[in-house]
Amino acid sequence: MKKIAILGSTGSIGQQALDVIRALPDELKVVALTGNKNLELLERQIQEFQPKMFYSSVKPDISYGGEFLSAEEIVSHPEVDLVIMATVGKAGLRPTLAALQAGKTVALASKEVLVMAGEIIVREASLHQAPILPIDSEHSAIWQCLQGEESKPQRLFLTASGGPFYHYSQSQLARVTPEQALQHPVWKMGKKVTIDSATLMNKGLEVIEAHWLFSFPFDSIEILIHPQSIVHSMVEFMDGSLKAQLSWPDMRLPIQYALSYPRRWSNPELPHLEWNKINSLDFEPVDYDRFPCLKLAVEAGRAGGTYPAVLCAADEVAVELFLTHRLSFTNIAKIVQKTLEQHRNISQPSLEEILAADDWARECATRLSLDRCEQPERRSNPGIER
Amino acid sequence: MKKIAILGSTGSIGQQALDVIRALPDELKVVALTGNKNLELLERQIQEFQPKMFYSSVKPDISYGGEFLSAEEIVSHPEVDLVIMATVGKAGLRPTLAALQAGKTVALASKEVLVMAGEIIVREASLHQAPILPIDSEHSAIWQCLQGEESKPQRLFLTASGGPFYHYSQSQLARVTPEQALQHPVWKMGKKVTIDSATLMNKGLEVIEAHWLFSFPFDSIEILIHPQSIVHSMVEFMDGSLKAQLSWPDMRLPIQYALSYPRRWSNPELPHLEWNKINSLDFEPVDYDRFPCLKLAVEAGRAGGTYPAVLCAADEVAVELFLTHRLSFTNIAKIVQKTLEQHRNISQPSLEEILAADDWARECATRLSLDRCEQPERRSNPGIER
Repeated sequence: MKKIAILGSTGSIGQQALDVIRALPDELKVVALTGNKNLELLERQIQEFQPKMFYSSVKPDISYGGEFLSAEEIVSHPEVDLVIMATVGKAGLRPTLAALQAGKTVALASKEVLVMAGEIIVREASLHQAPILPIDSEHSAIWQCLQGEESKPQRLFLTASGGPFYHYSQSQLARVTPEQALQHPVWKMGKKVTIDSATLMNKGLEVIEAHWLFSFPFDSIEILIHPQSIVHSMVEFMDGSLKAQLSWPDMRLPIQYALSYPRRWSNPELPHLEWNKINSLDFEPVDYDRFPCLKLAVEAGRAGGTYPAVLCAADEVAVELFLTHRLSFTNIAKIVQKTLEQHRNISQPSLEEILAADDWARECATRLSLDRCEQPERRSNPGIER
Repeated sequence: MKKIAILGSTGSIGQQALDVIRALPDELKVVALTGNKNLELLERQIQEFQPKMFYSSVKPDISYGGEFLSAEEIVSHPEVDLVIMATVGKAGLRPTLAALQAGKTVALASKEVLVMAGEIIVREASLHQAPILPIDSEHSAIWQCLQGEESKPQRLFLTASGGPFYHYSQSQLARVTPEQALQHPVWKMGKKVTIDSATLMNKGLEVIEAHWLFSFPFDSIEILIHPQSIVHSMVEFMDGSLKAQLSWPDMRLPIQYALSYPRRWSNPELPHLEWNKINSLDFEPVDYDRFPCLKLAVEAGRAGGTYPAVLCAADEVAVELFLTHRLSFTNIAKIVQKTLEQHRNISQPSLEEILAADDWARECATRLSLDRCEQPERRSNPGIER
């Protein structure tokens, strides 16, 4: 029986993690839940799972046998075997470090943790022999494909659905609304990740994550557009053999794999591929030019230091402005790019320096966006960017 | 340095195994070569590789330091680390058993060995802790996908190119000539295997092999038509996750993997997939009705005993008659079916009983084919079978 703490249990990944745990009561037990703003859902989750510990930025008005502890106290608690990090943004940074320093296994869904502080996170994990298990479908795929392989792979192929606008022209992209962008063709995800998928920023963050998770050079990580999202990623070995991991696009599978590893569990809730419904799996090389966020992310990853933290923060600001109709879809990349250009990089930064860079980038991106903030609907010629 | 004996070095697989060894002189050394009828090629191979031992049904007129020994003496020789079994038909049976009984690793390309005597072969391998490594591309794919997996898989998907006639009608199939059938769209192989690929008998034999190699029930082995032959097979696990192995169709890769296992080696001769040349990977369920050889093979495998040996022998006779224009393409299945129908099965047969069933089946198939032997070109209505 694995005892699980979920940080961010009210988010999309947190809820799906609870679906997996609910389906496997003999294998998994919830010992801690934490939420943020969705207090009502957190209270319902607490009532159902009766965790020994819980936390929320606002203390829920609930009386039962559980203890109200901080995220750092929860992740290092002796009752916890495995921590699912499913918070959004930089909130996951300190708890992840605390969990690793306590030697806990961390199943990582929060992209920003490795993107912002990959070097520190990987060093602490190694120092305390605390495993980091990926929950992202792409990284889970790579991880599954690497099992049992003694030789280092030669290339990683991250697949990308391409999002809803992959074949849009520049002028079509400039007119995209938040409502359109939130309709992802394949995956059911949180709003921020859905927009990041549409700009391919998400894929860029995944490249940085893959670099840290598998200690793999950026030059050997490639992206393939694969609209069906059945092949979740591939690994190429030095003899020319590739392994791919396939499944219906359902986040519960990579979540469960991180929990069942190194074994696998049968779960009637998880869909199996039906090959009479799949005629073909399509692939095409990615177009970096039409999706500048992807290029920016990979460049920030390569440059390292505080650049990736600045990338994340500027993107978060820009996406929020887009979601509230104050920035056009194509201006998301512009804001991120301008912020990166104005940043003075710090190499091998401390956690404090990373968090300071994040603060700086938020201010900078907000300031830069004042020039561009507008109702995209009202633009006279959305094809021309200033 | 692994010391390799190749049984059947003048055949297609044998020659490709020598290509691999030639490209990896620091890793692999040929210590024995055996051929059959192609004496001229065997002599050239002996001159190039100077093996310590050699054998041929006719003794080659060649004088050098090597010793002329029987196949059984070669495979159990202390100088041999690994035996590549690449002979055609039942010729591989006794040498494979001898190699396993001597505790040697056997890299198996000869389909008939496991099809005819799977139970005996698997028992001896287990008794002497002698590994059997698959060389067929499909079984190598499955083997690669199973690496590092602790839980038993749920389904195996063997892929099949479908051969050159997969979308032919019954009447078109009846008119197929040996010349057409020998033009396989993807793989370069020996004549017998190429015809077996066109009838899908080859895929049926592979199902039986997979059953024995991975101790997997027939009901959980499925076939998918995949014309591009890039995905060489897939394994589905109980959580709904699948792993696939992909590469350009080139037999040198599975041969090399069996030799490099558990590692992988870089080999500049081996092609790597170029994703800008692959737009899509297509799949469709197999049609058992139009390809009765496949159905017959799977049924013979399920029934067990001496049936699979009878299947192999009858098929060999029928394919030889087809290749010499004495039997129509669609009559191959008829001869195999009639022979199986007339066979009295022996369950858990000894090797002698298997070889006796093989002899009986050859006689029976030859006798049955007398009724049907003809020039298919001269038939007045090739769509109607007697």
